[in-house]
Amino acid sequence: MNHFLSVKDVDQVDNWLTEALSIKENPFQYAELGKNKTLGLIFFNSSLRTRMSSQRAAYNLGMNVIVMNVGTDSWKLEFEDGSVMAGDKAEHVREGAAVMGQYCDILGVRAFAGLTDREKDYQEEVLTAFQAYAGVPIISLESATRHPLQSFADLITIESTRKKARPKVVLSWAPHPRALPQAVANSFAEWMLEAEVDLSITHPKGYELDPEFVKDTPVIYDQEEAFEGADFVYVKNWSSYKRYGQVLNTEVTWQVRESLFTENSQCYVMHCLPVRRNVVLADDILNGPRSLVIEQAANRVVSAQTVLKQMLTT
Amino acid sequence: MNHFLSVKDVDQVDNWLTEALSIKENPFQYAELGKNKTLGLIFFNSSLRTRMSSQRAAYNLGMNVIVMNVGTDSWKLEFEDGSVMAGDKAEHVREGAAVMGQYCDILGVRAFAGLTDREKDYQEEVLTAFQAYAGVPIISLESATRHPLQSFADLITIESTRKKARPKVVLSWAPHPRALPQAVANSFAEWMLEAEVDLSITHPKGYELDPEFVKDTPVIYDQEEAFEGADFVYVKNWSSYKRYGQVLNTEVTWQVRESLFTENSQCYVMHCLPVRRNVVLADDILNGPRSLVIEQAANRVVSAQTVLKQMLTT
Amino acid sequence: MNHFLSVKDVDQVDNWLTEALSIKENPFQYAELGKNKTLGLIFFNSSLRTRMSSQRAAYNLGMNVIVMNVGTDSWKLEFEDGSVMAGDKAEHVREGAAVMGQYCDILGVRAFAGLTDREKDYQEEVLTAFQAYAGVPIISLESATRHPLQSFADLITIESTRKKARPKVVLSWAPHPRALPQAVANSFAEWMLEAEVDLSITHPKGYELDPEFVKDTPVIYDQEEAFEGADFVYVKNWSSYKRYGQVLNTEVTWQVRESLFTENSQCYVMHCLPVRRNVVLADDILNGPRSLVIEQAANRVVSAQTVLKQMLTT
Repeated sequence: MNHFLSVKDVDQVDNWLTEALSIKENPFQYAELGKNKTLGLIFFNSSLRTRMSSQRAAYNLGMNVIVMNVGTDSWKLEFEDGSVMAGDKAEHVREGAAVMGQYCDILGVRAFAGLTDREKDYQEEVLTAFQAYAGVPIISLESATRHPLQSFADLITIESTRKKARPKVVLSWAPHPRALPQAVANSFAEWMLEAEVDLSITHPKGYELDPEFVKDTPVIYDQEEAFEGADFVYVKNWSSYKRYGQVLNTEVTWQVRESLFTENSQCYVMHCLPVRRNVVLADDILNGPRSLVIEQAANRVVSAQTVLKQMLTT
Repeated sequence: MNHFLSVKDVDQVDNWLTEALSIKENPFQYAELGKNKTLGLIFFNSSLRTRMSSQRAAYNLGMNVIVMNVGTDSWKLEFEDGSVMAGDKAEHVREGAAVMGQYCDILGVRAFAGLTDREKDYQEEVLTAFQAYAGVPIISLESATRHPLQSFADLITIESTRKKARPKVVLSWAPHPRALPQAVANSFAEWMLEAEVDLSITHPKGYELDPEFVKDTPVIYDQEEAFEGADFVYVKNWSSYKRYGQVLNTEVTWQVRESLFTENSQCYVMHCLPVRRNVVLADDILNGPRSLVIEQAANRVVSAQTVLKQMLTT
Repeated sequence: MNHFLSVKDVDQVDNWLTEALSIKENPFQYAELGKNKTLGLIFFNSSLRTRMSSQRAAYNLGMNVIVMNVGTDSWKLEFEDGSVMAGDKAEHVREGAAVMGQYCDILGVRAFAGLTDREKDYQEEVLTAFQAYAGVPIISLESATRHPLQSFADLITIESTRKKARPKVVLSWAPHPRALPQAVANSFAEWMLEAEVDLSITHPKGYELDPEFVKDTPVIYDQEEAFEGADFVYVKNWSSYKRYGQVLNTEVTWQVRESLFTENSQCYVMHCLPVRRNVVLADDILNGPRSLVIEQAANRVVSAQTVLKQMLTT
């Protein structure tokens, strides 16, 4: 079965990128492909872009969509094997996932990291259970450690915008008032390492990402130095991987703002959204010509549609 | 771009009314018009009629629909420009609206008045922002100051029911336990002033509406006197515009009940719903032949479908 | 008007079963039947299977779907006639149901028992009101006293699995930490009494069901004795009907587990889900070959689709 949980589930990134650009050009070329097929979107957490772009992608392929907010529309799910379920969870994922798989041809699942237990988060309890029990292809709508539909959309955005064959891409940490997962950063690194780009990462000490995702990507602890000669700066906050889930400092100076770029810089700035203005990114970036954030969001339909198209045809 | 935020966005009310009556007669005549188009319904507040009738209207035109409850399905939005977003709002409307506009061909937006800051409410912060940033046509699903889909449905109802060329229409305030916006009353007045009716308004002193909406419409402070010779009485509570958002008194005697009408009166009674029985309208009205409230609600599909049809064809 | 509120609304159970098995075999044979028709799904309570399977069933018939969570998407509804609505309920079901009936061709309604007032629950206040005021066919998505779509799916499951002409079916009470309605048990009994099976019931004393539903079905108070020679054991918790809504004891020994069956037993175990593992049913049942729970859940699409098909064609 073909799942879409990480870049590892993509046989050839180049081919997928070509398909994506074709779908972007002509979104309705496969409008009959999903006839009589239903996509289930299962949310354990809030969502705006993912919720809407996945629906739109499915509609463009002629699919039907069922949206389920677990815990509000339905009951809380138990994930522990062997547990005596006498508490607040009325259904086990073994049944829950299997049942949803009976009603849908493909299931998208969103389940964020809890940020308290690193091992549990990095084992991807929720997505692993859905893979094991649903019996249908699973699409990650952002899991504890990855957000592949976002990273694929980011790659499409870079591909559509780049002015040189092999651009310099810098992933930059930025401050945020709350502890956030590493998922977007992990996933972005993982995809960039499969793409025709030179990746480097900049963040304050203590925010080193899991080597499993970033491999030997250069880390530069000085943000200004890291940005020199960059073609794309990808901005994102994440909490510490080492001191798991902690906000080590607020480092307000790491906010990405126009003054970090020279006057002639053609560097683009990216962010997956939602973004807190004047905390993560300054108004002057978001209101100016460097920002690709809306284009990235638009490409979420393209990445989701490409993934669904692959699943419907293989 | 063609928005639908008030009667001012309707070039010719008569033509729209003709179109509406044709759609009411044959709801599926444009069943292919919305193929491959998606309507987004963005709710900052609860909704029953608007939520369901807008979906039905879109389906009748062959459109797809995405529903988004802001703040529960997704995050809270910031509207203030220049704010440092370190609080509970994770996304600015500049991004939020722009992104939703990438996923939908038309956006319907509901955002009620806060009833604490009159200037802010009457500047229509939410709808103005969506107009500015979404990049697609916006339909008001009731804003701080207007409810044009309701008013258009009300006009269709009057047109379908009237027994004379120029009926006498009375907008009557009625009591309510909670402070309600002026939106329905404002909007009804605004539409009636564009229609072939004689409008007058009755309410206790202190409930005068914004002159911007009611112009020089006669106000009669005696409800019984106001109802004399009326063909349609439109009942609605609203809080004070002058002492903004306040419930000045409960005036239970203003409840509209059968005894206000003479035995031979052919006068119809209208209300936009939801209605609190035996507070706003008495059972004897709602259970009797004067009531048009269900017909009005049914015409919400017709008004939404007419607006969508206009947007899809211009 | 054809409603679907209990087995009494089925003219010939055998014919419906034949239709169901045909739909199960070929789910898309009526894919055009629901063109331009809309199913409204109105939830007063949480739902996973019902919510998703009803949507899927409607899609398989080419229908559109509108989902409404009463009280979160919209306002709370008043059901009392003659009440002065000055409290927290903004709309009366007389208007609410009538309006929803204007927007949908068929309405599914879920409203659980309150378990405090037996007479009120057994009068089916919510479904009775929708029947009276909506003006369109009503499908029970589980009411205070019945869950007919589940029971029909259960019958389809038995029919698809049985190894003899007239199997022995045992409805068994099982423990649960919370007070649950009698709806599933009532409804299962009612349907089995119309089917080609031999039904008996087992539960601790005090859990006798309403004779209206179980008629003269044998009750055996010893679970092991009851299971002897059974072909299907249907497990379900319910609270007391006599001491209404009470959990009389926790009777953990009534949990259904593999050791209750002899080694050679071919008996199947059924449950409507959600099920609390190791409280109601042991892991060894749910993970083993006796369990039909996922098949039952899958048949929820079939039962809903058969009911919708009947409504669309009569």
